[in-house]
This record gives sequence, C-alpha cells and structure tokens, in this order.
Amino acid sequence: MFKKILIANRGEIALRIIRTCKEMGIKTVAVYSTADKESLPVRFADEAVCIGPAPSNKSYLSIANIIAAAEITNADAIHPGYGFLSENEKFSRVCQEHNIKFIGALPEQIAGMGDKATAKATMIAAGVPCIPGSTGLLKDLDDARETAKKVVYPIILKATAGGGGKGMRIVWKEEELEAAWDSARQEAGAAFGNDGIYMEKYIEEPRHIEIQIAGDQYGNACHLSERDCSIQRRHQKLVEETPSPFMTDELRERMGQAAIKAAKAVNYEGVGTVEFLVDKNRDFYFMEMNTRIQVEHTITEEVINYDLIKEQIKIAFGEKISGKNYYPQMHAIQCRINAEDPYADFRPSPGKITSYHSPGGHGVRIDTHAYAGYTIPPNYDSMIGKLIVVAQTREEAILKMKRALDEYIIEGIKTTIPFHQKLMEDPQFNEGNFTTKFMETFEF
Amino acid sequence: MFKKILIANRGEIALRIIRTCKEMGIKTVAVYSTADKESLPVRFADEAVCIGPAPSNKSYLSIANIIAAAEITNADAIHPGYGFLSENEKFSRVCQEHNIKFIGALPEQIAGMGDKATAKATMIAAGVPCIPGSTGLLKDLDDARETAKKVVYPIILKATAGGGGKGMRIVWKEEELEAAWDSARQEAGAAFGNDGIYMEKYIEEPRHIEIQIAGDQYGNACHLSERDCSIQRRHQKLVEETPSPFMTDELRERMGQAAIKAAKAVNYEGVGTVEFLVDKNRDFYFMEMNTRIQVEHTITEEVINYDLIKEQIKIAFGEKISGKNYYPQMHAIQCRINAEDPYADFRPSPGKITSYHSPGGHGVRIDTHAYAGYTIPPNYDSMIGKLIVVAQTREEAILKMKRALDEYIIEGIKTTIPFHQKLMEDPQFNEGNFTTKFMETFEF
Repeated sequence: MFKKILIANRGEIALRIIRTCKEMGIKTVAVYSTADKESLPVRFADEAVCIGPAPSNKSYLSIANIIAAAEITNADAIHPGYGFLSENEKFSRVCQEHNIKFIGALPEQIAGMGDKATAKATMIAAGVPCIPGSTGLLKDLDDARETAKKVVYPIILKATAGGGGKGMRIVWKEEELEAAWDSARQEAGAAFGNDGIYMEKYIEEPRHIEIQIAGDQYGNACHLSERDCSIQRRHQKLVEETPSPFMTDELRERMGQAAIKAAKAVNYEGVGTVEFLVDKNRDFYFMEMNTRIQVEHTITEEVINYDLIKEQIKIAFGEKISGKNYYPQMHAIQCRINAEDPYADFRPSPGKITSYHSPGGHGVRIDTHAYAGYTIPPNYDSMIGKLIVVAQTREEAILKMKRALDEYIIEGIKTTIPFHQKLMEDPQFNEGNFTTKFMETFEF
Repeated sequence: MFKKILIANRGEIALRIIRTCKEMGIKTVAVYSTADKESLPVRFADEAVCIGPAPSNKSYLSIANIIAAAEITNADAIHPGYGFLSENEKFSRVCQEHNIKFIGALPEQIAGMGDKATAKATMIAAGVPCIPGSTGLLKDLDDARETAKKVVYPIILKATAGGGGKGMRIVWKEEELEAAWDSARQEAGAAFGNDGIYMEKYIEEPRHIEIQIAGDQYGNACHLSERDCSIQRRHQKLVEETPSPFMTDELRERMGQAAIKAAKAVNYEGVGTVEFLVDKNRDFYFMEMNTRIQVEHTITEEVINYDLIKEQIKIAFGEKISGKNYYPQMHAIQCRINAEDPYADFRPSPGKITSYHSPGGHGVRIDTHAYAGYTIPPNYDSMIGKLIVVAQTREEAILKMKRALDEYIIEGIKTTIPFHQKLMEDPQFNEGNFTTKFMETFEF
C-alpha cells in the first residue's frame, strides 16, 4: 500500500482524506496556503507544507508548488479531493511523469469527460441516453422544424451566446415554433449581438439524480446507487439524499446500467459520478461525469456502510473491486452548512467562529474542519461543514435532521442552518415532490 | 403516542432520551439539580424543572420531587434512564399509582430481578444456566466435599462476610479441599469475626458477555445479540464491543435463547439486558438481569441500525414487537470517556472544560453532554461522554477508534482518553484475547 499521501486540498475534504489515511496506516502530508495555517488538516496531518499565499492560483492550483511539496516529503501518491486540481488533465499527467500516483482519473479520462462535446459523443456511442437536440446551430426555421420533429416536443430554443434566460424559448408544439423562433433570434441579437440559436429537448420537471460508480484497472465496474441533488440554488447543491424519493427499483436498475456503460466506455478507474437529468416520465439523460470524489459521497457511505475514500485509494494502488453493485439499506440526507447569510441572498459570511457545538447521537455524522476559535478565511468556497443523518426511512431521516439542526450551534458568523431548518418543514420537500426548480419559488 | 415525557435523569443519557423524543415528536421535560442548571439537557428539553440540590437523595433520587415535577408539567410518562431510580420498584409503583407511565419494568419485574436469590431461583426454574454452588452456607468439610462433587471442580470457597479476597480459596481438586477449607475459615474468622463459608463453581477465564433483549406486553420476546464488556476496572465497564471477539454463531444462539427464556420467565416488558459470565469452555452462567437501558446500548444500535430508546418508548406505549432476533451486521466499539485521571489511579477530575473538539466522519458517533465552557460538577458519576465507532470488521473498528481518540480534544480537566489510546495499542486487546481480569495486569 502507499506509504505517504499528499492531500492537494483544504477544508473538510482534506480532513476527510486524512481520517481514512490514518485508519489505513498511511502517513499524510497536508499542503496549505498562508490563509489556512491554523486549519485542522494542518494540525492532524503527519506533515504540513505551506505552498503559497491565499489566491488559489498561487497555492492550491499551483501544480509546481504541489509537486515540489510531494517530492520534498517523499509522498508516493497525491489525493486531489474535489475542486481545485481534481479534474485537471495536466496535473494528472504531471503526477504520472513524476512517478507519483494521482488518486483520481487518468489524464485521458479527465480530458474525455471534461470536454462536453467529446463526452456526449462517447456516451451516445456507448448507448447512454443524452439530451437530444440540434447538431450545433440551427440554420433557419425549416431546419428548426425538421430538428424538432426528431427531438420530439416540447423543445427549448437557446441562444448560443445566451445567459440569464435571454433568447430562450420553450416550445410545446409545432404551431408555436415560428413565433418562438422569431422572438428568440430577435432577443438574442439585441442582447448579445449574436442571434445564433440551437435546440434541445425540453426536460419537464427535471431532477438531478446521479449514480455513484467505481471501476478498476482490470475492467470491472459497478454502481453504488443514486443520490438526488435536485435541491440546488444557482447550480450549487444545498441538500442531497439517497435513495431519491423519485426512484423506483426499475429506474435504479436502468440508470445503474447506463452509468456502468458510461464508466466502461472510458475504462474508468477509481470512483466517479455520472450525473443525469430525470424527467417527469422517468426518462433520464446524461449530463456529465465527475471523475473525482464528490462533496455528497458521504450519504452513499452511510447507506451502504462503505468508505469511498478508502475505495479510491485501494483502486489507485491497483486493487481489484468485486464488481457487485451496492444498494441503499437505509435513508441518508446531507445538509451543506455554508458560512452564508440565508436572509441576505446567501451572501458569504467569513469570520471567526466564537462558539461551536455539534450535534451527536445515533445516526448523526459531522464532516467539518470548523471549531470554536477558527477564523473562516474569505478566500475560498463558503462550505464549512456537512451534517449527515441516516435512518430507516426518509420520514425518520427528516425528523432526525430537524433535531440535529436544532442542536447545531455556530456563533460569530452566519450559516445556512436556518435555511435547512425551514426546508425540513416544507410540505413539498417532505412529500419528496421537488425538481431542480424548487429553489426558484422556495420562500425564505 | 405519549404527548410529553419527563426524563428523571441527567447528563448524556438525559440528552440521549431528549434526542429520540424530538425525533418522535414527543415533548420533553428535563428535571435537574441546582448543580446541573447549565447542562445541555436543560437547554435542549422543551421544559425544565429544578428538583432540588445536588445530593441525589434530595433531587434525582427524590420520588416525591420527580412525581411533583411530572404532575406540574402534565407529563404522561417518565423515562428513568440508567442508575438513579431506573430499577427502583417503589418508583415504578408510584408512577403507576399516579397514572404516569414508567418507561421501564413493572414493579414486580424489578423486584424479582433486583433480589439476587429470587432472580437465581427464577432462572433455574426457567432453565437458564446459573453458577452452581452451595445452597447457603456450608455446614462442614463433609458438606463441602459432597457439594463440590455436584458443582464439579474447580470450585471457589467464599466468606459470607467477605471482601477484598479475604477468606477466598480456589480449589482445583478434592485433595486440596481440606487445607483450603481450614485456611479459608480461619482467615474469614480473623478478618470479619464470621467464618461462614459458601461455595460456587470457579469460572475459569471469565468474560462478561451480555445479551440485549426486548419483550412486549403480548408475550413476545427477542434478543438483539451480545455485547462484550469484559474490559472493566473494579466492576466498572470501560470499553464495550459487539460482536464479542469470543463469540461463535453457535454460542450466540445458545445465549440468545437463554436470554429469551429469562425474559419470558418474568413476562418482561421493555428492553433489558441479561448479563452472563462465559468461561473458557464457552459455558455460560446467568449473573443478573438489568431491567433498564444500559450505558452501552449504543453499540447494539450501531450494528443493528435501530434506536433502542425509541423501542423502549414504543413498547411502554403498548406497541407490539416483531419478535424476530437481530444480529450484528458490523462491528462497534465504545470507549467511555470519564473525567478521571488515568495516571493517578483514575481519580475523578471534575472542573471546567476550557476547550472541546469532538471527532467526526464516517462511522463515528459521540454521545455527550460536554461542551466548551461546561463545568463538570463533582457530585455525580464521572462519565462525561461515549465515543462509539462502527466499521466492517473489528480490526477496522480499532483503527477507527484510534484515529477518533487522536482527534478528541478535551482541555481543562483530565480524561480517560490516554488510557483508551494505550488500550487500543495493546496486543492482547487487539487479539481479542481478554477476560474480566484484564485490567488487573494492564500496565498504564
């Protein structure tokens, strides 16, 4: 097994990786920016190396500094966590060149999945359902009409230069197409000086449901069931759960098999996630594949009793996986605790934590690098912790989450705890009846 | 379901019960002595009532004060936790008389199990193996000789007035009996002024293994497998685990069935524990039955994914249990974190906690009422928290416990954390090769 792993990350995920390494008897090296000098990963790792000042391009994104830290400390592997360099093709390759094992995907896998067009082509070839649409821009109204017939209504017209919903039109049937085409082009031209329009199938009542997968270098791949991440705000996930309240055994099997196809299509090594949009008819469409550990890996761990970071490390070292699929035995929910003021449009709230008390007891897990006296630097992502509960049923898990949130005391900064408390009371959330658009109308 | 439960206890178990009540939507009343005014149960309960000053007989043992608190707050049930009034026959009866449901055993069950002689007679009648021995005192050497033949060697002679090993002799074969008899009587007479001697079978390499059971008012009973509590110091448990490293499937089945017989013999309602001594030949002997929740119920919860406090409440309310037995799916270990100085003969170390940080992550559970700034009063038991880990195997659980203990920071007082760290490194403990005598020779 690896002797020493350098963790090229910070915050809770750095601590998370240190924990597993300790349990595996592997030495750890934390790297840190000057802003993170007082952080828990620095304290708990066996060694710590400062890799530069706070701006990430001078520290956590500096491949040269990180490789230098690995060479100085004689680390034989690097775990990149999520974000930062975790899906950086060049970093994966530089690690290879320096004979340091990158605990993540191979450069060619990152490249293949990072480029959306290549990824989509690979998935279509592998038989993984993707969102149907035009090949590039539509030439004219006739082209739009012919394409819409193949894509099947409802469709959505989108401005290629678009953003903020401008130049975007949902079209439910052919009779509405001409008017929508004209107004979308006009609006796009006026807004962006570019009236190029393309078409996609419009996904009704979309849910973000992703499948956790694992693959090894011997061609084995398996799925570890789904996570529902539909509760998101501006594409940032806020709450994740497994099983999805929208899931059926039949759909899980179809999505699981599709995810395995996706993994095998790129000979995937390591743990990864295939993200899908699922519509109201339970048809699903490939969005992207994340070739790294995810923030929400924790809930999968709780329902299948498995340490996914350990699995990553073992696969990277060359161990075989069993290839058997894993199914949730319990229900888990995670609330992301962000240093943000939910009453002020989720504005970041860095600063010093003056008082800190975490909930405990049966079925409650906390992953955090926060503690009383810790000063959250303003330079990074505002997530400071994850509160995870696990129970026999979804209803019990929500009740447990409520009581755990009530016990969670963080003073000195604003956090998203009050938002989560309100969400847990919401009737629609309680019914499991929500889509990715939920937060657009959720009143807080 | 009950509307409001009064918790007639303090510390971590009071908090533990509040947590489950919150998850069940049941209101809670905390009662507290003046010494516990600032404690977490008082903060987290819906209501709190002061029941008197610190000496327990004026507060936590005052039946009158507690019943008055229940009546004032209109509580329809009382949960007694462990210790204090949890196995008090009178308290159980007074609750009945006041039409308040006592969440525990019926008065007659408490009485039957509290009196050792009655309990033993009941168990023998029910076919539960008990430690063989003389019926009362031995008359003379001939009586001793005849009794020893029935009990089967090795036997132990004990002074009826005994203590501290005085007047106690282990006898391995008949040839040694006469000398042992004479010297035991002489020593007992000199030490206690009473040379009465009785005999028991001598249990070789004893382990304390207990079976968790549950029974309902409809005559159903089941077992929830074992906990090994052999790591104890002066009869105080320090570490508990499940499964027992000494257990076999066959022994679990035999012990489980014996525990169910014990429960059925007294029509047991609620959750309870049947404690056994198990010898090196895997023969087991009834010690006692605890008609209450135990400190170490947590590890059973972790390996069977079940909330035992919820089960207690449901049974007390009159719900049926399924009657099916539960078997461990994982391995769990609990370390009791006591405010004691392990370097000074485990002397209590009450006082103010100046800094507190608890471990977290996958498979780590903390049950505690401690927090930064909390002053541990000198009046009560020194246990301030329980650190529980759960993993796929015993080896993994020990590794996880080590890393969790390393992360646990409690400053301002002495704790048993360094003791547990040393224990987790011990080769004998790691091999699972220990008896109740382990702590007599463990060097710290």
